[in-house]
Amino acid sequence: MSDAMREPDEPIQDVAHLGHVELLTPKPEESLNFFTNVLGMSVTDRAGQSVYLRGAGDFERHTLKLTESRTAGIGHMGWRAVSPQALRRRVAAIEASGYGKRWIEGDFGHGPAYRFNDPDGHLMEIYYVADRFKPTNDQRSRLKNQPQRYSQIGACVRRLDHVNLLCQEVTQNREFMQSVLGFKLREHVVLDDGTEAAAWISVTPLVHDVAYTLDATRSRGRLHHVAFWVDNREDVLRAADVLLENDVFIETGPSKHAITQAFFLYGYEPGGNRFEVFSGGYLIFAPDWEPIVWTQAERAKGQAWGLRLPESFHSYGTPIVDVPPDQMLDIPVVERVVKR
Amino acid sequence: MSDAMREPDEPIQDVAHLGHVELLTPKPEESLNFFTNVLGMSVTDRAGQSVYLRGAGDFERHTLKLTESRTAGIGHMGWRAVSPQALRRRVAAIEASGYGKRWIEGDFGHGPAYRFNDPDGHLMEIYYVADRFKPTNDQRSRLKNQPQRYSQIGACVRRLDHVNLLCQEVTQNREFMQSVLGFKLREHVVLDDGTEAAAWISVTPLVHDVAYTLDATRSRGRLHHVAFWVDNREDVLRAADVLLENDVFIETGPSKHAITQAFFLYGYEPGGNRFEVFSGGYLIFAPDWEPIVWTQAERAKGQAWGLRLPESFHSYGTPIVDVPPDQMLDIPVVERVVKR
Amino acid sequence: MSDAMREPDEPIQDVAHLGHVELLTPKPEESLNFFTNVLGMSVTDRAGQSVYLRGAGDFERHTLKLTESRTAGIGHMGWRAVSPQALRRRVAAIEASGYGKRWIEGDFGHGPAYRFNDPDGHLMEIYYVADRFKPTNDQRSRLKNQPQRYSQIGACVRRLDHVNLLCQEVTQNREFMQSVLGFKLREHVVLDDGTEAAAWISVTPLVHDVAYTLDATRSRGRLHHVAFWVDNREDVLRAADVLLENDVFIETGPSKHAITQAFFLYGYEPGGNRFEVFSGGYLIFAPDWEPIVWTQAERAKGQAWGLRLPESFHSYGTPIVDVPPDQMLDIPVVERVVKR
Amino acid sequence: MSDAMREPDEPIQDVAHLGHVELLTPKPEESLNFFTNVLGMSVTDRAGQSVYLRGAGDFERHTLKLTESRTAGIGHMGWRAVSPQALRRRVAAIEASGYGKRWIEGDFGHGPAYRFNDPDGHLMEIYYVADRFKPTNDQRSRLKNQPQRYSQIGACVRRLDHVNLLCQEVTQNREFMQSVLGFKLREHVVLDDGTEAAAWISVTPLVHDVAYTLDATRSRGRLHHVAFWVDNREDVLRAADVLLENDVFIETGPSKHAITQAFFLYGYEPGGNRFEVFSGGYLIFAPDWEPIVWTQAERAKGQAWGLRLPESFHSYGTPIVDVPPDQMLDIPVVERVVKR
Repeated sequence: MSDAMREPDEPIQDVAHLGHVELLTPKPEESLNFFTNVLGMSVTDRAGQSVYLRGAGDFERHTLKLTESRTAGIGHMGWRAVSPQALRRRVAAIEASGYGKRWIEGDFGHGPAYRFNDPDGHLMEIYYVADRFKPTNDQRSRLKNQPQRYSQIGACVRRLDHVNLLCQEVTQNREFMQSVLGFKLREHVVLDDGTEAAAWISVTPLVHDVAYTLDATRSRGRLHHVAFWVDNREDVLRAADVLLENDVFIETGPSKHAITQAFFLYGYEPGGNRFEVFSGGYLIFAPDWEPIVWTQAERAKGQAWGLRLPESFHSYGTPIVDVPPDQMLDIPVVERVVKR
Repeated sequence: MSDAMREPDEPIQDVAHLGHVELLTPKPEESLNFFTNVLGMSVTDRAGQSVYLRGAGDFERHTLKLTESRTAGIGHMGWRAVSPQALRRRVAAIEASGYGKRWIEGDFGHGPAYRFNDPDGHLMEIYYVADRFKPTNDQRSRLKNQPQRYSQIGACVRRLDHVNLLCQEVTQNREFMQSVLGFKLREHVVLDDGTEAAAWISVTPLVHDVAYTLDATRSRGRLHHVAFWVDNREDVLRAADVLLENDVFIETGPSKHAITQAFFLYGYEPGGNRFEVFSGGYLIFAPDWEPIVWTQAERAKGQAWGLRLPESFHSYGTPIVDVPPDQMLDIPVVERVVKR
Repeated sequence: MSDAMREPDEPIQDVAHLGHVELLTPKPEESLNFFTNVLGMSVTDRAGQSVYLRGAGDFERHTLKLTESRTAGIGHMGWRAVSPQALRRRVAAIEASGYGKRWIEGDFGHGPAYRFNDPDGHLMEIYYVADRFKPTNDQRSRLKNQPQRYSQIGACVRRLDHVNLLCQEVTQNREFMQSVLGFKLREHVVLDDGTEAAAWISVTPLVHDVAYTLDATRSRGRLHHVAFWVDNREDVLRAADVLLENDVFIETGPSKHAITQAFFLYGYEPGGNRFEVFSGGYLIFAPDWEPIVWTQAERAKGQAWGLRLPESFHSYGTPIVDVPPDQMLDIPVVERVVKR
Repeated sequence: MSDAMREPDEPIQDVAHLGHVELLTPKPEESLNFFTNVLGMSVTDRAGQSVYLRGAGDFERHTLKLTESRTAGIGHMGWRAVSPQALRRRVAAIEASGYGKRWIEGDFGHGPAYRFNDPDGHLMEIYYVADRFKPTNDQRSRLKNQPQRYSQIGACVRRLDHVNLLCQEVTQNREFMQSVLGFKLREHVVLDDGTEAAAWISVTPLVHDVAYTLDATRSRGRLHHVAFWVDNREDVLRAADVLLENDVFIETGPSKHAITQAFFLYGYEPGGNRFEVFSGGYLIFAPDWEPIVWTQAERAKGQAWGLRLPESFHSYGTPIVDVPPDQMLDIPVVERVVKR
């Protein structure tokens, strides 16, 4: 492949995928019980106030780091680069952007990582060196291409999929991720006054590796949700039964989003963070994808099959902030049941 | 993204995805009826002896070209490049390999394409300029991100997924696709004598955009199958009921492959070509994926849940060739039901 | 089986199952298009202002009679008796109850039927002689035990399942169906003030062949919905996509009821009648079933996974009546999202 | 309902449903581990060499009694009568048939039972008094109509469904169950020479509560399989993954039967008994059902989607008997892949 040089202005993919997410929880034991016994993830490592977890279909050593904290929220997100060279290029670009912080030595499962903030203040890192998960004999799947035995516990989530971040301003963050890290805009909501209310962006063919959503509380750095993939819509329905029997609050779903076409289910884990169990959606292979623009009127129609999301979906996030409703941003995507 | 140059020896993705496949059929009307009324695809264009079709979830204008011919088989496969520069690089590499043929002007749905053979003689082409599908009002989906209305006809396949090619020698073709076009080896079967019996390769996170399988009849240029994606395992089961009620021969499945983890269903369309309706599998995001190697003994265990594939699966392909069983290559992956 | 006599006070099953339902529609062409092209039923007969339809899995000749009418609503429901003797016994019991009307000669698909009203005024009939559906060659399924070819059209509903009737008083109607026709109470909602708000009753192991629900408008003889069975929860999800693409109003769902455990989807057909596409639930084989009693507080928790039904679900029915909200019965089962 | 007398020759349903099955196992610990940790059942009682189990959706106290024994096989089947009177009638009929044995005092979960053999020698019992399952607080489901919390373990089977018995002669046993216990013939296979090769019979709307199949080894009293219900075809697919990861032998499936339309999966539990995880099929509500007759030629076409069952399916049963293939009965339903 080295027979021809890249030209300087070509689009290139330097970020491979979302590697891991760190969630903060004020109820570490209950949260750990939830992610292991209800979602069906398994523990790989423990250190200090953190426990490291993975889904049976995750190829990296861990994809979720659960850290005890005074409040819930997102600790950081880790992006894996496609190569050492790509890592160097992205670090240079981040530093040039002014949002860079510093290198850290690494963590369980990955090597040196460069830390930075997105404009809204969410902490991120990028790294290249990563461990592939090595199952113990008990963990080994009967399928050689399956990194770990099918978990058979609770909702049996397969892998980490994406994160949805709340922010004060969508466009600034979306453009940062595009220009500095090479993300592509896939779908977004643009209100009648021109405000971008939400954007779904990715480096992979997934519709989103990360999404940015306007925070009605005007806060910074909050988490909307972290999402875990299951293979079929039936698995999402089954997850709902599992959540029901485990007294886990289901905020909305299962149902189908119009945006991303994902089949979703949202709940709050015991620490307060919103999680999603999801499947479906679609893959984008076209190199010249034209972003899908959803208008205010289109969003007001609700989800694909007409479901209205509850008010909390547009304001709740972690850390939890106490903003009186009358001081909240009025984001005019309130959904109504609209009859023909 | 232009702030840093690519280094010459970095892995790069120049091929975006499988764009379209041309199938040859001696029974054009019956084949057309099958792809439209049984699989649920729709017609976009007609010219000469060819009809162009698409699944409701395909973003390109067409993904299947059905051409009347004396015998069944594959006409050609079209690969879309990620950019004009990528196209130029790949054409240069193909020409350097000695397998290049010539430029063609284009076809419905895409612009100039460079044609070449793989070492086994399958005709391929690569192009960049492509039409996005524009639905008529009747074809427009109620979901803006869905290129066409859900077909509601027959098996309702969503999109073209991959092609499996029979060949005289797997390694030569696999290495050609890797070195000249940038494919990555994801999984393969290596027999006890070192023969590579099959290889699954891709440029996308799909486990395979194309697979090469040893042809037991020692022929060249034949097709094993072309595969269409549906969103859920349930959709594959439903497709089986649809095929049953339409008297379409089901060769094997629905069941689950160990290799690729795909949930599959194979049949023969009226022209004789094998098709697959499939879902599931897994996505590969790791930039440093280590190919999964399956041994002869592992393959002998059958599919994931123990199903034995019929003999025909290892010898039937199109065009149909008349080789007496005793002159066939004895590929020792014959599957047996193996009790604990 | 004739070696021992029944004792006079034994429970007996004289009604075999729900045979057919007549729906009234002010938009006969649109309704017919909906039931055939969207739900996937087929036409068996036509006479006067009526069209007769069936699902591919219905064993009787037709299960839905669609009749043009000034307003929407239910025309009548037909119950099939298990034997001529059972028919005679039930007619005697109906006549003794004072709710009997008269014999009619029969209709397409069934012989003489005795007509009666339930206390709320819904028209019903009971008959024994019935035609089994005889498919034409084109309609014949490849499965001998399947009365008709899998429809492959739209939502592909398999069979009529049940009817939900609105009424002024639940208990009176429920007791009539129990004492006069032998129905069994399976589940019901009893409010804090002792009012029975809804009851699910059956003669078969289904949780309900018919349900009675309090009519918030204090009307008589109205229809809440008629329900069609599909085999899997996935089929209900698929139906939602079909309804979406056909601009059919989805009132609520797909989701799971706590009561009956059914996986449901409600919409309005073009004539205005509410229909349900559903699957799941459970079967009751115990001869000494103890009815499940749901309290006001339990109902306030919403559906199984926390979904709130829209207000319309508790007041809309056919024929449509114009009752100002402040004159409506305040049925305190308004559902709220309740967080732990 | 006592206003009119039953006439002496009317069809009546005296048997309510299959209550429980006793399986014999030479590997009691492994079998217990299988039924609890792989199929997801729970233990209710233990006594002597027996453990009593149930699915989370079973309403009786237990539905499976697992008893240590020198060889595998079926211990007995228990049928629940609809009433004390029905029990008396059936006992009288059994005694008149000459196949009666004696009353036993009862067992965990049910009261006095009358024991008898079917003509082939399988031990059965009939009883009326039965315990409804009372969950402990930990076992209580969040759904009031669900007898026990969704198990969330392994395949999560919902309830016992049916038993398939091998026998020397089908007709004699089938007619015994019809005339003495009131079963109805739903489907059967009749060979070209008039031999009835298998019969599916039921008292409920299920296509079979019990089936009789010709035993190729000419043995008596053997078990073909015991079947457990799951709610969706997806649950059967999931069960296959669970079995795979637990090294449980899958004999055939998941796939769809033509007869009964059931979606099936067969394996052997560690004690050697064949089990089925199944879903789907259809319900029979018609009181005048005409049995479906399958010919030798129709059976030779394989299962609904063309799957051939392995040879073992036609000869393996428990207890295991050692009959050389050349001394086996040649039942001409050997399935071949038949191309159009």
